[in-house]
Amino acid sequence: MAETLTLDEGLTFESGAHVAPLEIAYATYGSPSDPVVYISHALTGDADAADWWGTLIGPGKPIDTDRFFVVCANILGGCKGTTGPSSTNPATGERYGLDFPLFTIRDMVTVHRALLRALGVSKLHAAVGGSLGGMQILQWSLDHPDEIERAVLVCATARLSAQNIAFSKVARHAILTHDAMDVARMMAHITYVSDESLRRKFDRERKVPDATMTLTSDFQVEHYLDYQAKIFLERFDPHSYLYLSRVMDYYEPFAEEGVTAPATRFLLVSFDSDWRFGTEHSEYIAAQLSAIEADVVHHEVVSPWGHDSFLMDVPEYHALVRDFL
Amino acid sequence: MAETLTLDEGLTFESGAHVAPLEIAYATYGSPSDPVVYISHALTGDADAADWWGTLIGPGKPIDTDRFFVVCANILGGCKGTTGPSSTNPATGERYGLDFPLFTIRDMVTVHRALLRALGVSKLHAAVGGSLGGMQILQWSLDHPDEIERAVLVCATARLSAQNIAFSKVARHAILTHDAMDVARMMAHITYVSDESLRRKFDRERKVPDATMTLTSDFQVEHYLDYQAKIFLERFDPHSYLYLSRVMDYYEPFAEEGVTAPATRFLLVSFDSDWRFGTEHSEYIAAQLSAIEADVVHHEVVSPWGHDSFLMDVPEYHALVRDFL
Repeated sequence: MAETLTLDEGLTFESGAHVAPLEIAYATYGSPSDPVVYISHALTGDADAADWWGTLIGPGKPIDTDRFFVVCANILGGCKGTTGPSSTNPATGERYGLDFPLFTIRDMVTVHRALLRALGVSKLHAAVGGSLGGMQILQWSLDHPDEIERAVLVCATARLSAQNIAFSKVARHAILTHDAMDVARMMAHITYVSDESLRRKFDRERKVPDATMTLTSDFQVEHYLDYQAKIFLERFDPHSYLYLSRVMDYYEPFAEEGVTAPATRFLLVSFDSDWRFGTEHSEYIAAQLSAIEADVVHHEVVSPWGHDSFLMDVPEYHALVRDFL
Repeated sequence: MAETLTLDEGLTFESGAHVAPLEIAYATYGSPSDPVVYISHALTGDADAADWWGTLIGPGKPIDTDRFFVVCANILGGCKGTTGPSSTNPATGERYGLDFPLFTIRDMVTVHRALLRALGVSKLHAAVGGSLGGMQILQWSLDHPDEIERAVLVCATARLSAQNIAFSKVARHAILTHDAMDVARMMAHITYVSDESLRRKFDRERKVPDATMTLTSDFQVEHYLDYQAKIFLERFDPHSYLYLSRVMDYYEPFAEEGVTAPATRFLLVSFDSDWRFGTEHSEYIAAQLSAIEADVVHHEVVSPWGHDSFLMDVPEYHALVRDFL
């Protein structure tokens, strides 16, 4: 479903690195004559927003494709059609791999804006993102204060904690030292869901109740993690995982000099059971935005599903987004 | 400092497996004429209790070696002198490795009791353990209701949660599939400390503040994890890690038929910032013990250090242990 825009001249990133050509895989939904809603995806997403965020986006949904022209692109550094470490480096004819330049969330925004320029869009009715998606939207609104009328940041952060960075480090260490993206994904998956949601789904149930103890997978939750790792290895590039996780560690927009209030109105949503980017992360963003006198409201929503709640059908959260748009 | 008891005839375990010879590395402190306090260690400990638990054990300490005869042994399956997967299998002349029989926490207790029999001890003034150590003491008190007068279970559990098992699975998967005990240890270490303690120690500090971003270790917390992994690889056996973590997953003493109240008095201590075996785990033990009309008190102690609080100098916790003994 995704289309591709190729920028032959490429783009220059914050570090000074120039990447050309630069391809951007994107998808659109609805009529181009309607107000534009831009969607930024999280770590492992892609351009097909109405697929992976089908709970929120579609005809009659909170982000209603009968009323809005919805645009989403695979992010810079990803492996779903937009240029990243798995793309061919024209200088060598081989995959970039670890030769791909390190980049920032600001660089991701540069790519989103280049796409919109090519589509003839200069102003967004709204921009919406969860987790890393929200981090891009926040950076965008701060850097370009008149482009986004409404920003929806769902379980986002403006400053990873030491614990967040620690998990991120272990994932990269597993990939770099042991070629073990399966381990990285299994561990990360635990952080995306709550203790309570694992209890509700699996508790201590065994796959074969009376089978003899082994050191591999006996409990249902173990088989579930095996499965999550397997499908992830088939669909994701380890180098993209390295780069995209590192981008998040370094992100700290309010630590920069001279941050001023954009014209954007912000809706922040966090979930009470989210222990990855929980309510304290959204509270921090709200406090920083309030301090520069930006227009911001923050709602903590009760949901048992942890960080992944942003992908789930949580009525209170969906009502907040619908009303805000 | 540890001595070794060798049982030439070995021991038979719950599965029916017989291990012979069986060596038990143990240490004692104080005078054998004093009342006996037995210490059970956690996943990666050893017999030298006054070393790794020096905050709690020693002359004048809450477990006062001037008043008590303190005994501790390396646990079954460990790699610090007691027979385990890294020991020589007499049938082959090679390390047991994955040929070592799977065992249970009840089997660990069998080994502790064999040691005490050899030392001429039949009754314990107290038995004390944190985490996996506490799990052994609980099993012991339920199976042998007249042997332990006072049991101190610090941040123990009687039933790992689905999230606990999930982390345990990822650690074993890293070791079995990628020979990556360093990854297992890094991840486990994050679960032993609180978000708050990582924030206090490291926050987002970089080792070299203005250095260029890399994909390896830039933040202080990353260097800390590298160091933790390195020293652990030097001192611990991956097979012991596999077996000892698996033992914990299966432990569920109150799911057995016919559990009745021992004569033991129980003190349970949990820490408010512990997210590995937090207060809800001790509450579950207290509820189960109360249901069988055992004598139990439970205190939640405020401490910022997470699960590792049991090894730290936390005055309220130490006062509780001192008074109880």
